[in-house]
Parts: sequence; C-alpha cells; structure tokens
Amino acid sequence: MKKYFLLFSLFITFQLFAQQLKYITNKEFTIQGKAFQNTPFYHRIDTDKYANLPPKVKTLFTDPAGLYVSFKSNTSKIKLDWTTRSTYLGANTTGIMARGMDLYTKENGKWIFAGAALPNQQNVKSDYDVVQNMTKTEKEFLLYLPLWNELTDLKIGIDETANFINQPIVYKKKIVVYGSSIVQGASASRPGMSYPSILSRKTGYEWINLGLSGNAKIEIEIAEMMKDIQNVDLFILDCVPNSSEEEIKARTIPFVKLLRKYHPKTPILMVESIIRPMSKFDQIGHQNMIQQNKAYRNQYEALIKDGVTNLHLLKGDNLLGTDNEGSTDGIHPNDLGFSRLSTAIEQKVNEIFSAQK
Amino acid sequence: MKKYFLLFSLFITFQLFAQQLKYITNKEFTIQGKAFQNTPFYHRIDTDKYANLPPKVKTLFTDPAGLYVSFKSNTSKIKLDWTTRSTYLGANTTGIMARGMDLYTKENGKWIFAGAALPNQQNVKSDYDVVQNMTKTEKEFLLYLPLWNELTDLKIGIDETANFINQPIVYKKKIVVYGSSIVQGASASRPGMSYPSILSRKTGYEWINLGLSGNAKIEIEIAEMMKDIQNVDLFILDCVPNSSEEEIKARTIPFVKLLRKYHPKTPILMVESIIRPMSKFDQIGHQNMIQQNKAYRNQYEALIKDGVTNLHLLKGDNLLGTDNEGSTDGIHPNDLGFSRLSTAIEQKVNEIFSAQK
Repeated sequence: MKKYFLLFSLFITFQLFAQQLKYITNKEFTIQGKAFQNTPFYHRIDTDKYANLPPKVKTLFTDPAGLYVSFKSNTSKIKLDWTTRSTYLGANTTGIMARGMDLYTKENGKWIFAGAALPNQQNVKSDYDVVQNMTKTEKEFLLYLPLWNELTDLKIGIDETANFINQPIVYKKKIVVYGSSIVQGASASRPGMSYPSILSRKTGYEWINLGLSGNAKIEIEIAEMMKDIQNVDLFILDCVPNSSEEEIKARTIPFVKLLRKYHPKTPILMVESIIRPMSKFDQIGHQNMIQQNKAYRNQYEALIKDGVTNLHLLKGDNLLGTDNEGSTDGIHPNDLGFSRLSTAIEQKVNEIFSAQK
Repeated sequence: MKKYFLLFSLFITFQLFAQQLKYITNKEFTIQGKAFQNTPFYHRIDTDKYANLPPKVKTLFTDPAGLYVSFKSNTSKIKLDWTTRSTYLGANTTGIMARGMDLYTKENGKWIFAGAALPNQQNVKSDYDVVQNMTKTEKEFLLYLPLWNELTDLKIGIDETANFINQPIVYKKKIVVYGSSIVQGASASRPGMSYPSILSRKTGYEWINLGLSGNAKIEIEIAEMMKDIQNVDLFILDCVPNSSEEEIKARTIPFVKLLRKYHPKTPILMVESIIRPMSKFDQIGHQNMIQQNKAYRNQYEALIKDGVTNLHLLKGDNLLGTDNEGSTDGIHPNDLGFSRLSTAIEQKVNEIFSAQK
C-alpha cells in the first residue's frame, strides 16, 4: 500500500512539474535599462543615429550590458533559448557574465537571485533551465542580459498554461553611468553583479550602464549623445581607467562643460579610477594610475574654480577595500571588489541626493 | 639641458626594467600544498599508489588545485610560460581560475596579491607577464597553480641577474580538506581565492586541498588513503554537495570510523553543504539539499552517540550569507561567497583549536 502511495505521489509531482513549455519570443517582451527608447532591440544605443561615435564604441554599444527583461508570470519553470554574436570569451571572465544571463525574483519587495543561464561554450546557440519547481503563484522576474557579447535572439520558455505579463520596473530616480570595462561589468561572475546592476537593485534607482570595455576615453561625442538622454537625476563619469593622462587633461573640461550646458541642473559625479591591485608592486603601473587620478582631480578642481556647480568627486583610494583582494586579474573587480565598490559609490550618491533635499 | 636629463632618465628606467629573462624550469623549484611528498610533480596524489580510488577521482587528483610554488627572489619581473592538458573551460569559471595562476608577495608578514597569469584561451601553451617594474629588493613569492586543469609544464621567468631561492612556507598547523568542486575552487575568480587558499593565507595553517569537482562521495577508499597523511591537526569533511541522501546514510559512519581508527586523536570537522542559492525558489532542489544536510547531521549525531570524540559539525545555514548573492551559477560560490564561507569556517576551526588548549 505504502509503495503504491509513493508511486502515486511521484506521479503527481511529475505531473506538477513536467509541463510542456511555450516560448515568449523577441518583441513579445520589452527590454529596459536603455538610455533611449528607440534603439535596435538588443542594443544599448542607436549607433546609426550617433554616427560620430568612435567605431569601437559603436560596436561595444551593441553589447546589451545592463539591459534586462522584467515580467510577471505564474510559471513553475523558466528555460531560455538564446544566441550570441560569437563564442569569444576573455580569460578573465566567466561565460555566464559574458554570454549568459541571470534571473532575480521579487520577494518581500527585494530582488533575490533565482538562477543563472550558462551558455554553450562551443556554439553561439544556447539553452538552459534557469529555474524550475517553483510554486505557481504569480511572481515578478528580472532577467539580466549578457554583459559582453551581442545578443541576437532570445526566447523565454515558461509553462504552457502560465501567463506572461510585461511588467516594467518603476524607479525613483535615473542615473547614467559612463565608464570603462569595470562599469560594463568585467569581471563580475554574472550579469547581475556589475555595479550598476547591484546598485539598481539596492537603491531603487535605475542605473543606465554606458560601460565600454577598453574605452570611455572622454570623447566629446559621448557628451553630445548625452544631450538627448532625458530626465536624468545624476551622471556618473567613471572614465579614468583607459584614458591617458594627456586625454584626461585635454578632454575632461570640454566634456563636463558641454554636459553641463545640456543638463544645467543635473548633478555630475566624477569617479576616480580604482587603484589597480596589480599596481601594488609595479612601480610604473602605480605611478601611471596615480598620475591619471591626479590629472582627473585637477580637472575637477579647475571646473569648480570656473564656477561649475553641482559637480562632485569620489576619490579612488580604497574603492576596492584595503586588502588588495578585490580583483580577478589585478585590473577588473571580482564580486568581492564589486561589492565594496558598490558600497562606496552608493554612499557618495546618497550624500549627493541628500544635500539636494 | 632639461630635455637631455629627461632622455637620460628614460634610458636609465629602460635599463632598469627591460632586462633579459632567465627561466627557472620544472624541478628547479619545489611544489607545496601536497598531502604527500612523493607524488608526480604537478599532481596532488600518486594515483598509481592509491589504485582503488574511483577513476574519476584519480583524474581529478591530477589537477594541481591548492598546489603552489614559494620562493625568494630579487627579480623586478616575473613572467610565466606554461602548458595545461587542455583548453577546456566550464561556463561558470574564469580561465585564470581553471588554467591560469596568481601570485602573492609577502609584505609586513602578510601575503598580498601581486598579479595574475591569464591563459591563452585557444592554445594549451600560454605565457604571461604576471608582475613587472618591482623594486629589486629580495621578496618572498607565493605562486598558486591552476585549480581545474592538469599542468604539464611550467617555467618561471625572472631577471637574468636575479637570484631564485626555494623557500618553503612554514605553517603552524596542517589541515586536510576533503570536498567537492567548492573545495577545489569553483567558481573562485582565480586560484588564490579558493577557500583553502584564502584560509592558508589568513590563518598561517596549511590547508591541503582535496577538492574533487562533481565528486567527494564519501568513498571509503579516500579514508584509506588518508591513513597515510602524516601530522594532520584537523580533517575537514565538506563532502555533502555531490553525495545523495542514500550515499550519506550508508557511507558517513564507516568513513569517519575508519578515519578515527587511523588518526585516533585528530579532530574531524564535518561541514554541511552550503544552501545552494539556486534552490531559493526551486522547491525540489531545496528539499533535496535540506535532506542531504539532515542526513549528514544525523550521521554526526549517531557517531557522537556511539562515542566518537573530537568530532565537530558546522551547519550549512547562511554559510554564504543571507542575501543569496554569494554564487556565480546558483551552485558554486563567487568570490563574495568564498569570502563569507572562509570566515564561517575559520571561526569554527578557531573554536575547535581553542577548545583543545
């Protein structure tokens, strides 16, 4: 008797969870996290419109760093089918961060990690069961797109009988972060661990990711583009790491002045570079970093002296903590480093917003 | 005049740092972190000697997880040339962790991260400048070998005129950690961020890494092998994640009793599985984990009841913190998770050693 009961229970369980799936395809869902509404579906920026941007920057804006899909569903399972441009992967990144995704679910008003989508390492096409065996109560989901590789197709698989409701996340403020690979998210372990993503979840503000790996060289064309971004509450310029001392000296003042001209009242936060952990014993590397940060700080002081208001500076010392452990490769934060960096930036942003009240 | 001085300074700088390198080749250096001295050069265990180990376990023991080279040198630069068995890389790991290396340097009695060696992603042969432009004062170095791929050759490049002195690290105690992929180090961002490596640096104790990806199924052959490990101050059995409830029930008591027979006085710490972040919303996954941990805890209690002494248990709740953010893929800790897990284990180990005084 007991045996039959067990078999019956297994059967019920199987029925409960082994449903057929249906797929929500491109353009049945909406994508958030963009600086502008009208961009190619998986791209951050419409680079045809901003034709003067440097070619490498245009390519990087096709990576969906910081973009995400948010929806409600009463599905018990979420499976993803997706395609990326290439299988390219740097030695300092995980496949999940570069070409995969991660999913959060809201619980008691907080976004809680629910599962990751691991890409196929040999093929541009991947499929993965991100989460399964959930209760069938309706939940809110937040799915982060890959940080480092163009996404060309995505299908979201849910229970055949489940609903799917596009449910845009509503934020209290909008922050635009322009920066290097660190802003884009290397070497976070997964997309949701880039600092703009961490801080979006923590602060309830929208953090738009304009991170550009190996770039963010304070080109004036970026400030020109930023003219068109509407309703911004704060611009963050975290663009020191890949800019030479000369570029910083030549470009910072014109860039900030143009941005100020277009956005007369929006606060601007200039963030110095993290001190690269690899520069701890590398004397020349260390000297270069110090010179870059010093040059950026000098531009900040010159701008203040010149009467630019609502301009702020976050110094680079100890942004990754004091134990030199906060990086994957000596250059890019690991998740420990991103956790510390997020806390430092959050604190500064809170100060700026508090002072405005 | 000023211009000539500048050129002269640049020339001196160039001379100082752009030296030819010489290579310290295999067997000119020694490897630490092994449970036994006489193993194949880059292997953790001599699997010919322990022929009864499961085949997959034998293969995993050829990964040099937790092994390292320690030396003194007055070199200004360290470059590595190395070869791994394959270029295989899981989607949840970085190349640096799996096939690369990281280097620490001692400063004021502490090991400080100095640089990482990024592997060639397309070729089994790699070379990388890990650190350069250092002062030429003599320093102690600690170089972690890859966690996830067999290393078949390594050459350590230093300044042609520099010295190289094998300098074994001396520890206060020896701890042997038997466990799953989490012990082996997935998904640490680099080899030095596995929890046994973190804790070796923090505690001044040697933590021997017997982590076995996808394995550590409490096989009695492991306890048989552990018979021969000498001078152990603590055994840690972190072997729940890949063991089924049935395996835990059938194997834990015989395993611990045999280990106790061979090492009558050595404390043994049984660590429950971390609660997998992916099981937060996955009801069946969650139930499985709870059942595994419960079964392990029951075996612990039965062993205590049966009179086994100096046996300890660390519960799995909150080992990765309470925010569900401590993993890369829902299963393996990221560097944030490893940081938290290390703290929890360190605390428990300190308790055990304190009680013995």
